[in-house]
Amino acid sequence: MTPHSDTQSTFIFQRITIIGIGLIGSSFSRALKSKAGLVQEIIATDSDKDNLAKASDLGIVDTICDDINEAVSRSDCVILCTPIGTYEKIVKQIAPSLPAGCVLSDVGSVKAQPIEKIIPYIPHNVHLVPGHPIAGTEKSGPEAGFASLFEGRYWLLTPLNDVDRDAVSKMRRLCEGVGAMVEEMDINYHDKVLAITSHLPHLIAYTIVGTADDLEDQTQADVIRFSASGFRDFTRIAGSNPVMWRDVFLNNREAVLEMLQRFSEDLSLLQRAIRWGEGDVLEALFTRTRDIRRGVIDARQDIPPSPNDAK
Amino acid sequence: MTPHSDTQSTFIFQRITIIGIGLIGSSFSRALKSKAGLVQEIIATDSDKDNLAKASDLGIVDTICDDINEAVSRSDCVILCTPIGTYEKIVKQIAPSLPAGCVLSDVGSVKAQPIEKIIPYIPHNVHLVPGHPIAGTEKSGPEAGFASLFEGRYWLLTPLNDVDRDAVSKMRRLCEGVGAMVEEMDINYHDKVLAITSHLPHLIAYTIVGTADDLEDQTQADVIRFSASGFRDFTRIAGSNPVMWRDVFLNNREAVLEMLQRFSEDLSLLQRAIRWGEGDVLEALFTRTRDIRRGVIDARQDIPPSPNDAK
Repeated sequence: MTPHSDTQSTFIFQRITIIGIGLIGSSFSRALKSKAGLVQEIIATDSDKDNLAKASDLGIVDTICDDINEAVSRSDCVILCTPIGTYEKIVKQIAPSLPAGCVLSDVGSVKAQPIEKIIPYIPHNVHLVPGHPIAGTEKSGPEAGFASLFEGRYWLLTPLNDVDRDAVSKMRRLCEGVGAMVEEMDINYHDKVLAITSHLPHLIAYTIVGTADDLEDQTQADVIRFSASGFRDFTRIAGSNPVMWRDVFLNNREAVLEMLQRFSEDLSLLQRAIRWGEGDVLEALFTRTRDIRRGVIDARQDIPPSPNDAK
Repeated sequence: MTPHSDTQSTFIFQRITIIGIGLIGSSFSRALKSKAGLVQEIIATDSDKDNLAKASDLGIVDTICDDINEAVSRSDCVILCTPIGTYEKIVKQIAPSLPAGCVLSDVGSVKAQPIEKIIPYIPHNVHLVPGHPIAGTEKSGPEAGFASLFEGRYWLLTPLNDVDRDAVSKMRRLCEGVGAMVEEMDINYHDKVLAITSHLPHLIAYTIVGTADDLEDQTQADVIRFSASGFRDFTRIAGSNPVMWRDVFLNNREAVLEMLQRFSEDLSLLQRAIRWGEGDVLEALFTRTRDIRRGVIDARQDIPPSPNDAK
């Protein structure tokens, strides 16, 4: 029960329960285990028994527990690492078992609507600190995770106004402990920024790969063979977890539709420029977008998603 | 004049002139120099004197020549590595200087229209073998090239029906010599496949990065900071050479507009599914696109564009 035999006082949390041991959950577990002094014990629970067995076989958690209420009942920190569409059901179920003073966090890509849905179930003596690590790959499952996933990445926290600041501080230290750069952000602003940086790119990538999938067989085969010319990067994004992404779009509808509307207008302008041979319009945009690329490189966000990822 | 002192008979070409010593031209030159027996001498010419000086300083060519007609007049192979919008002017100028039996090729991303434009100028004793290596990075200029760019990549040749087969065979051996996998393809089919694998992805990437560029300053700064969540990959694509890409869209208008129309219809369907909360429509598409991703991985096209490219 105390696999990391250190003095109790040095840990940020004594027992952390990770709900959902997929790509993010298992990476977080690996990262926590690889650094001394963060947590004393890592408990994993997952509705998919195969995932739990794999996590156990991989030795990336201290304890597996298939009873979610039992798992959280002994924890001073609980992290939801499941698709956001599951939050309400899970929190409703675990709420009676959450110990007083427990910190509840998550890693979802959308914050406002999913968090709003779970707030009514959370006991007053449990501290909700929503979070979102800007990290991941297109792969899924416990075997896809790796300990360095969060290193040099942003981990956004979107605490509500009435939150216990000590709980936020502990979550911050925990995330920084696995190498992340932590920023606090307004919950609605988070969803707006992510709509353009993450949700719309995924929607577009899914769309274009679907468009290619509808081509006749021979063309489709050649599209795959000659994908190195740009399409490949879209297939990588469009290989992400379908359920997770379905829930993202269902839960950030307004911000995504707003950005999609802007995108469609801009695309129509380029479509018109191509149709009428307006080379100057095309060149002007293609030149302007280079500055954004330079900004990304300057911000040092141009690093591979995974050390072993051949992309 | 004979930097590679081998017996004459072993070379595929004696003197090759590379017109335009940017990313592709300089990579090809580096690759040719790194393999024995392909060409005896590499001559570079470029309308940009700085590029020529850089190529000379980098030692990646044997001879630089700022007179394009003089450069081609001594060559048995000439490769156009300039934006396709320059082809007509260049070929018109060099045509009188092309030696009898010379092989003329190119590396452009669009084939039918640019090639159609230059055919009237090409002497009957010059062999036109259009080509297109499916390789590249978003970087530009002679310093951005590297010798291994073509290794394991497809190099498509789109010769016309009346071509000299010996000329095609020599181009094939030359491209295979730098590590590429050579395929012959119908010229119009090439442009259709590339419209979906390359041109549309670039157009979309340019559009979304432009959409982000129009956001208010603070949001734009945060978009760059939090770009690791998908947007980053689009900025990489949208950092490509503006003039080259302008010319691509102007020269493959019909195929691009056709694919763009299909894409827009598919995107509208997803937009509607998001608006009306049709999670099953979203999940079905997101699941289907995973198969295409697996195809790309199985075709081993999922390799990084550059060995040193952190992406």
